[in-house]
Amino acid sequence: MEKNRLEAFSDCVLAIVITIMVLEIKVPHGHELADLQPLVPVFLSYVLSFIYLGIYWNNHHHMMHTVRQVTGGILWANLHLLFWLSLIPFVTGWMGENHFSPLPMALYGIILLMCAIAYFILQYLIIRAQGEDSILARAIGRDLKGKISPVIYLIAIFSSWVSSWIAGALYVLVALMWLIPDKRIERVIEK
Amino acid sequence: MEKNRLEAFSDCVLAIVITIMVLEIKVPHGHELADLQPLVPVFLSYVLSFIYLGIYWNNHHHMMHTVRQVTGGILWANLHLLFWLSLIPFVTGWMGENHFSPLPMALYGIILLMCAIAYFILQYLIIRAQGEDSILARAIGRDLKGKISPVIYLIAIFSSWVSSWIAGALYVLVALMWLIPDKRIERVIEK
Amino acid sequence: MEKNRLEAFSDCVLAIVITIMVLEIKVPHGHELADLQPLVPVFLSYVLSFIYLGIYWNNHHHMMHTVRQVTGGILWANLHLLFWLSLIPFVTGWMGENHFSPLPMALYGIILLMCAIAYFILQYLIIRAQGEDSILARAIGRDLKGKISPVIYLIAIFSSWVSSWIAGALYVLVALMWLIPDKRIERVIEK
Amino acid sequence: MEKNRLEAFSDCVLAIVITIMVLEIKVPHGHELADLQPLVPVFLSYVLSFIYLGIYWNNHHHMMHTVRQVTGGILWANLHLLFWLSLIPFVTGWMGENHFSPLPMALYGIILLMCAIAYFILQYLIIRAQGEDSILARAIGRDLKGKISPVIYLIAIFSSWVSSWIAGALYVLVALMWLIPDKRIERVIEK
Repeated sequence: MEKNRLEAFSDCVLAIVITIMVLEIKVPHGHELADLQPLVPVFLSYVLSFIYLGIYWNNHHHMMHTVRQVTGGILWANLHLLFWLSLIPFVTGWMGENHFSPLPMALYGIILLMCAIAYFILQYLIIRAQGEDSILARAIGRDLKGKISPVIYLIAIFSSWVSSWIAGALYVLVALMWLIPDKRIERVIEK
Repeated sequence: MEKNRLEAFSDCVLAIVITIMVLEIKVPHGHELADLQPLVPVFLSYVLSFIYLGIYWNNHHHMMHTVRQVTGGILWANLHLLFWLSLIPFVTGWMGENHFSPLPMALYGIILLMCAIAYFILQYLIIRAQGEDSILARAIGRDLKGKISPVIYLIAIFSSWVSSWIAGALYVLVALMWLIPDKRIERVIEK
Repeated sequence: MEKNRLEAFSDCVLAIVITIMVLEIKVPHGHELADLQPLVPVFLSYVLSFIYLGIYWNNHHHMMHTVRQVTGGILWANLHLLFWLSLIPFVTGWMGENHFSPLPMALYGIILLMCAIAYFILQYLIIRAQGEDSILARAIGRDLKGKISPVIYLIAIFSSWVSSWIAGALYVLVALMWLIPDKRIERVIEK
Repeated sequence: MEKNRLEAFSDCVLAIVITIMVLEIKVPHGHELADLQPLVPVFLSYVLSFIYLGIYWNNHHHMMHTVRQVTGGILWANLHLLFWLSLIPFVTGWMGENHFSPLPMALYGIILLMCAIAYFILQYLIIRAQGEDSILARAIGRDLKGKISPVIYLIAIFSSWVSSWIAGALYVLVALMWLIPDKRIERVIEK
């Protein structure tokens, strides 16, 4: 019951975050192909952020599946995660409007890093609440992807002053890494 | 359980997409009838897109009714569909603000085409997951409407440079075609 | 099951409609009391529309409670109602920004009238689907409020060219009339 | 059933309120660090309001857990609470954009005060509906936090003309006071 409401609220916030990004793609006044051109980077950053939010929704959904009792800590860790995710439309818009210049690129990475840390905290609290024989702990195993991602974000943040291309490529790399369906949790539940 | 969350998330995204379109109908500063006039095409394109999104919600709702187990593929195919649907407010606003000039008309059709393709992929994955005796496969039968629509979109896209009226009429035609209640799935479930 | 999704979708749309109205209360640039003054009519129209949408949500909620099977007609009648309700933020913003001048006042009434008609159609279709011994039919009885409201809206629409005050007072009157808790349905269900 | 829909609607409204605040953090046109600087107060007020809305969602969630039957009074008291909460994005944006000048600071407190009063009314109606042996009444006990908060808001409102710092510190204080997980209700339910 309580879990349902936590999930419903998170779903709603994620659905809103994912769709208000579209509001950053401002309708151009002209009606030529040239009027669409400045929107290309805005569109590309929208695609990237959409995939990231999709991944978060997907993983959140699997993780919550293992939760039995929602503690106060889990509630707040979840809100903390939603807070950082809610800033993604802002950094997406800034990155897109400035055609991937260094600072917006770095800030995008910082927000992704904060999301990853917030997700890690939530995961940690759920595992702790589940006790010794935690399904989630077994499911994520060594959690390689979860540990490598923040490192790549950090490299991307610093490399964005060298080249926006490197930073961008690293963000795409992490997204692709997670896009590969994460069947770990499904597998353990089946057992 | 899992399906519920997928539906709740999709409902929420569709509800937001359908309502943020209204934000494109900008409140005019004057208070005369003449101030409303430039909003007429914006309003008309809002009506058309509202109907399209209503149809998608309706069909999505029927299709999901037949799903038993949500696979990773279905999850992502669903997000992929939501991605293209989320771009409808943008093209609706652009089409309305430019009084149905060729390029916005064509882009509107391109997005509708992408939505149709994304819907087709989702449908295909659900049928595949259901195995040989798929309820959905039996329900859609030869899926005539699903196959004709993309063809009409393509014709509309190219005809928008000839005349916006033809393209517009074709978009309305497809919408009307789908508005006729799709009782196929209901019928098969009853059996 | 199906009804749940219809309700969830309607709730979501209504929640969004009710909250995006707030976006029309634009944050003023100054920080004096005088900067808030032009927002007073915007705020007042927000309050009125909030109450109207609250009433619709409330009644929709009671009406849906009596529905057993969702037909295609009910689905579309519901979307039709949501369409007109989704236009309330626009007319609210226009009315507020123009300090209740005649045309915006009249348009506000027209949208309210369309909402009332759409609600009436939905109610009619539900009663028809429930057959002879319809709970809803017994609950609404002669539906006096439902029949008087459109008449008052019509009077208000025409009187807005005489005086915005009369029209405004009539809109407030209808809202108050409905605010009195509608226990009809609850009573019949209890029986 | 009815309660579910009330919760779903409230969750949706709160989710939207919490995320449209992000729209007030306007994407800057420049791409230097200096372009982010004017956004610092906007960001800080976003953090504060996010925490307040998180607290309200959290407490609302616990309070609703004790409700068995939704009366008309509870429905409207809930909408009344949502009304004041929906104004938080506006005052947050005004406070942030004006770098915490007196009037916006005071208005922020007034809205918080109205939210607290609305919450109190809702709580009162739920307790009354539950009758003598109310779980909620036992859970909140003397409701010290609920009684002190409005007093602090009042002090903050008046002190904002003396110093924005004092008012701000008081708002943060109340937030921290509530952030301490409110295990009262959980404890009583367990018994």
